[in-house]
Amino acid sequence: MPLKFVVAPDSFKESCTALEACQAMAAGIRRVFPDAEIVEVPMADGGEGTTQALVDATDGRIIEKEVTGPLGDPVVADLGILGDGQTAVIEMASASGIHLVTKEDRNPLITSTYGTGQLIKECLDMGIQNIILGIGGSATNDGGSGMARALGIRFLDANGNDIPEGGGHLDQLDQIDLSGVHPGLAACEIAIASDVSNPLYGEHGASSVFGPQKGASPEMVQQLDKNLQHYDQIIQRDVHKNVGQIPGSGAAGGLGAGLLAFTNSHLETGIDLVIEYTELKDKLQGADYCLTGEGQIDFQTKFGKTPYGVMKTAKAIEPNIKVVAIAGSIGEDIETLYDEGFDGVFGTIPKANDLQTLLQDGKQNIQRTTESICHLIK
Amino acid sequence: MPLKFVVAPDSFKESCTALEACQAMAAGIRRVFPDAEIVEVPMADGGEGTTQALVDATDGRIIEKEVTGPLGDPVVADLGILGDGQTAVIEMASASGIHLVTKEDRNPLITSTYGTGQLIKECLDMGIQNIILGIGGSATNDGGSGMARALGIRFLDANGNDIPEGGGHLDQLDQIDLSGVHPGLAACEIAIASDVSNPLYGEHGASSVFGPQKGASPEMVQQLDKNLQHYDQIIQRDVHKNVGQIPGSGAAGGLGAGLLAFTNSHLETGIDLVIEYTELKDKLQGADYCLTGEGQIDFQTKFGKTPYGVMKTAKAIEPNIKVVAIAGSIGEDIETLYDEGFDGVFGTIPKANDLQTLLQDGKQNIQRTTESICHLIK
Repeated sequence: MPLKFVVAPDSFKESCTALEACQAMAAGIRRVFPDAEIVEVPMADGGEGTTQALVDATDGRIIEKEVTGPLGDPVVADLGILGDGQTAVIEMASASGIHLVTKEDRNPLITSTYGTGQLIKECLDMGIQNIILGIGGSATNDGGSGMARALGIRFLDANGNDIPEGGGHLDQLDQIDLSGVHPGLAACEIAIASDVSNPLYGEHGASSVFGPQKGASPEMVQQLDKNLQHYDQIIQRDVHKNVGQIPGSGAAGGLGAGLLAFTNSHLETGIDLVIEYTELKDKLQGADYCLTGEGQIDFQTKFGKTPYGVMKTAKAIEPNIKVVAIAGSIGEDIETLYDEGFDGVFGTIPKANDLQTLLQDGKQNIQRTTESICHLIK
Repeated sequence: MPLKFVVAPDSFKESCTALEACQAMAAGIRRVFPDAEIVEVPMADGGEGTTQALVDATDGRIIEKEVTGPLGDPVVADLGILGDGQTAVIEMASASGIHLVTKEDRNPLITSTYGTGQLIKECLDMGIQNIILGIGGSATNDGGSGMARALGIRFLDANGNDIPEGGGHLDQLDQIDLSGVHPGLAACEIAIASDVSNPLYGEHGASSVFGPQKGASPEMVQQLDKNLQHYDQIIQRDVHKNVGQIPGSGAAGGLGAGLLAFTNSHLETGIDLVIEYTELKDKLQGADYCLTGEGQIDFQTKFGKTPYGVMKTAKAIEPNIKVVAIAGSIGEDIETLYDEGFDGVFGTIPKANDLQTLLQDGKQNIQRTTESICHLIK
């Protein structure tokens, strides 16, 4: 019987997508085992590249949609529709990400998740009832209020006027008006891909932990934290939900809390969601080898990164499977990964060269490394 | 029964010696197979590092000896004494190498192999009867006349005076006087490690092919070639040897011819000599895996480089052995090496970095790569 390989890498950041990495691995395998069964499963961990990977894994498509960026300027964001036509995948960073704001303009008092809400609204308008929402890399600290606003929810001050957008104005919030909420929202389930367990506010809350990297000064952090606490109280009173202390509610500047409060949603780790929607477990049945990988692999890989999730899943499904990781860059203390269960961790760099060249040659280097691995196991 | 590994790398140039590479590989193996039998065989191919590798492989020692450099200045050269105490190993480049002459001073009309002869004389004085002489990297074009002079042979002009040193003066040679030759020379056998097959003179001769890289102008090449042809005729007449057309006589500016004419010597490829003196074949008996490697591996590796020689030897001794090569730098078209028989070729570079750092980290990178290979074959 021919060998069965499952190739399930993440993207190699700035070098190739997860699908391209799959193809490079498959090409390397075929040079040694022309008759092998090769199943390509482009992976992601809920962060950057998740939309592309899930679309590629399911033969879906990507829609480009102009929405409002974190500072109010228009941005073109990606909306992924999986191959089933009934599930959407959104990366909040595509609409409301920190990379959309220059360093000088970073100001979490005014940045908004409105664009993310517009992407959700687009899904609802299409009748979609399942959304996977990756919420890493945000520029925002608005508790998801901008997102909710795009879905028809109003945030009013004591005079009944809409308060301005941004976490810096939530202290003016007096009332949440749910009367105009999008009619499709009730029937939609949102799976939030998040790997952080921070609460909405407090010492470990969104503002204290993630505010500074979004441009918040110590004074701003204090104000933002106080505002989110106030926001939580108004949500409790008007929405009858108590979300502020749920681990993960502080993800993406409190977008986690906003989603939990205003939508039907639940938090999952990114890698688990991707494993589920790529049907990785089914695809691993009967496999002899699993090749995974990522642009960078180091000791942190065991904290929820794609290769780790793939390896653990593979070993659970097929206890005798060999799982080998390929990385563009190998960092510190990877020896600990062997204790976790990896059967090999190989770098792809052939020779000393500048980073740009190495990134450009990513695909051929993955292929060559895979070929060498296959010769060794032949 | 525990696995048996033979680790037989060349040096990783500018990064670590062959012995250090052996130790790094052995350390990587032990992390995965603590009970494995590991035989360390530091290798070389007759070029740079051969003395060190053979001394390390046999528990020998290196003697530093001040001799006359190619331009007459004193240089400190290495003389290796193998563990048997009866075999010496010399790299001619250590005494007469091109690296000892600045680019501006390169002049094959006057450079001399005298220092190489002094090293041989030192061996004879010690009673040594077996010499391995690696003859790559020379700065000379004197037909080995300087070497012979150090052993007591005189090169006289028509007036019976010693001609000056250097290939540019061999046209003055009228007679070779063997009467003062070192008494130990007759009992000494010299194995010349050379990978070139050029004759002493002519279109493919020492001067035409290697003269230019030693600083010879076209006119100088013509003169040197004519001089070596004349030298060959005098040797035929006075020494009764016909060596000028023997493939390899043109090695090292005709040092090959001089050795063949004036000493008991024979030519062998460098890697074959090293395989012989390291007793690699015996050590490969019963081995399951052989790890080899070198600083650089590419398609040229199959033309007589150490990893290729090790692989072919290993496969001949143990047909089912797996031979894996590890390289600091992987060059073009290594796929052809798999057709030759390699079971894997892996680079050691973990991440994009400057060459200096990569060279410094050579040992740990070899160890890490070896460990990963061992996990994969476990």
